[in-house]
Amino acid sequence: MQELSVRHSNGSYSILVGEGLRFKLHKFLSKSYSKILIITDETIENLYLDDVKKGLSAYDFSQLIIPAGEKSKHIDVYYDAQTKAIETGLDRNSLIIALGGGVVGDLAGFVAATFMRGIDYIQVPTTILAHDSSVGGKVAINHPLGKNLIGAFYPPVGVYYDTETLTSLSERETRSGYAELIKEALISSEDLLEEMLSASLASLDQERLQTHLMAGIKVKQGIVEADEREHGIRSHLNLGHTLAHALEAELGYGNITHGEAVAIGLLFAIHVSEREYNCKLPFDKLKNWLVDNNYPLTGFTVKAEKIINHMKADKKATKQRIKMVLLERPGKLKTEELSDEAIQVHLETFRERLV
Amino acid sequence: MQELSVRHSNGSYSILVGEGLRFKLHKFLSKSYSKILIITDETIENLYLDDVKKGLSAYDFSQLIIPAGEKSKHIDVYYDAQTKAIETGLDRNSLIIALGGGVVGDLAGFVAATFMRGIDYIQVPTTILAHDSSVGGKVAINHPLGKNLIGAFYPPVGVYYDTETLTSLSERETRSGYAELIKEALISSEDLLEEMLSASLASLDQERLQTHLMAGIKVKQGIVEADEREHGIRSHLNLGHTLAHALEAELGYGNITHGEAVAIGLLFAIHVSEREYNCKLPFDKLKNWLVDNNYPLTGFTVKAEKIINHMKADKKATKQRIKMVLLERPGKLKTEELSDEAIQVHLETFRERLV
Repeated sequence: MQELSVRHSNGSYSILVGEGLRFKLHKFLSKSYSKILIITDETIENLYLDDVKKGLSAYDFSQLIIPAGEKSKHIDVYYDAQTKAIETGLDRNSLIIALGGGVVGDLAGFVAATFMRGIDYIQVPTTILAHDSSVGGKVAINHPLGKNLIGAFYPPVGVYYDTETLTSLSERETRSGYAELIKEALISSEDLLEEMLSASLASLDQERLQTHLMAGIKVKQGIVEADEREHGIRSHLNLGHTLAHALEAELGYGNITHGEAVAIGLLFAIHVSEREYNCKLPFDKLKNWLVDNNYPLTGFTVKAEKIINHMKADKKATKQRIKMVLLERPGKLKTEELSDEAIQVHLETFRERLV
Repeated sequence: MQELSVRHSNGSYSILVGEGLRFKLHKFLSKSYSKILIITDETIENLYLDDVKKGLSAYDFSQLIIPAGEKSKHIDVYYDAQTKAIETGLDRNSLIIALGGGVVGDLAGFVAATFMRGIDYIQVPTTILAHDSSVGGKVAINHPLGKNLIGAFYPPVGVYYDTETLTSLSERETRSGYAELIKEALISSEDLLEEMLSASLASLDQERLQTHLMAGIKVKQGIVEADEREHGIRSHLNLGHTLAHALEAELGYGNITHGEAVAIGLLFAIHVSEREYNCKLPFDKLKNWLVDNNYPLTGFTVKAEKIINHMKADKKATKQRIKMVLLERPGKLKTEELSDEAIQVHLETFRERLV
């Protein structure tokens, strides 16, 4: 088992990564909670909910099962969860457990952030992708007009990552999760990028996966500690996400996975960086790795105009001017404001490079 | 103009109290905001919205008018406000102005707390009651099962209290607001209580009102600085509110004003304190003042069982045990856990004393 600690403005929390943690959550709880509400989705319910319950038999707990998928980051599901929390008798000394991927974590975290003005919650991530969303305290739901537009900065009291749960992931989910790991490698260094791009997702062993996860989490931890509320450097974590969020919004949340969208977004960020800074970056290396690992790059047919409109509604945009995180090189990032026209040209030339 | 500063975990903000502040809000804004969204209700729109706009002509602003009254602290109004904020193009560098009483402040503050994970907002209170809700960063909406159950701790970046706006208050609103001032006096000292109870609301002059307001705000400021997130002493501000929230929930928000409910709640807290601590407190003095000033005490006919059920759903309750803030004497408060049976008896004896 490996451990990391994340400091934030009101304290700190531990991230534990290891095998079989889901059976022994009670060992990590720091308080005797009056009640526990486990929020999970239909998929994870069948796989791991019973395991988690075994470790909580000493507690008074209830459960809320939400539909699997991004559509659950919706105001109605959020409100139903609040109702459930009230009806079950949760109080300020209660705990919410987010058992699942990023959707469950974001939703359950936002419920915890706003139930009775904020109660404790822990993250029990069950996907690779959730290594990113479960750390750093960003919680949110979507609005039809944009992703994560309603939310809060609200850190968990602990993150308990059971790597055994990652063995049940589909190929597509593994791909989706690795996109964020690649992002963190790009933020960190050429070396980490090399290491990750030398892995083949089809034949990945558990040890290597765990190494990559810890490396990714460390990158994230360093950044969120330095800039909890995204006044500066934390925005670097949005590398690849300006286009990714636009694609998700346009194609409909759920029709493209977040990681697939991020993969395309990362490639686009490298493309724009090369053009804007007139430099050579590992565009082809990343593209080849994405192709080798079956990321869907060819389906990128959305109209530039629509993409640009979504980009302007993005949280990073100021006065409707598009902002993108760019790379001078792996490990050196900058946020730039770009005109609609520049984005349009970059999207066209990017499309040509994708074929 | 008088000024106070309130410290909190992420900084501090000013409270300005004086005449005509609504015309010159631009003078107090510390940043050049990309956009401003003014949230107000139908009543205040007619009275003061144009005045506020005059002082903001240099800004790009829009407005959202919500129905007047507690029913606007509803998930639907909250969501509509989020939609409005997105459609108007608010971004992370934008500002929300809460122009109105406690309902507007609580709703607009919660919108600001959760729009793009939190943007700046200022409080421009237009009622006496809002001297309480506008200070301290508690923002929330109601749930049919309880008041303020969904919300956050999210301080404003400033509170600008224009006392001229208080001249348009109805008798009922003045009464409602004074209940919270009386509460703060009870929390503070015998002397402040004496001073406030010597005032007659029907013939109140502006100077005295301003003195009482500042005194009340100072009590609140001291407490929220000492305990921002209500882990301890801040719960004293709930004096009178356990019963008040139950009455509001049972009678329907809007059918009894918050302050009217608090007035009854304060009297009940004194009654229970006398019984539990076997001491003599200014029950009669407060009761007489409430009667003299036309507070509706006789309408207190709700069944004990219903009141108790609401009390158990209160945010202060732990494991469904009712907690009440009691007084050993004005200035010395304690939170006590009480059995359902004890509450039942206290409610019955209280009813007898009210006639």
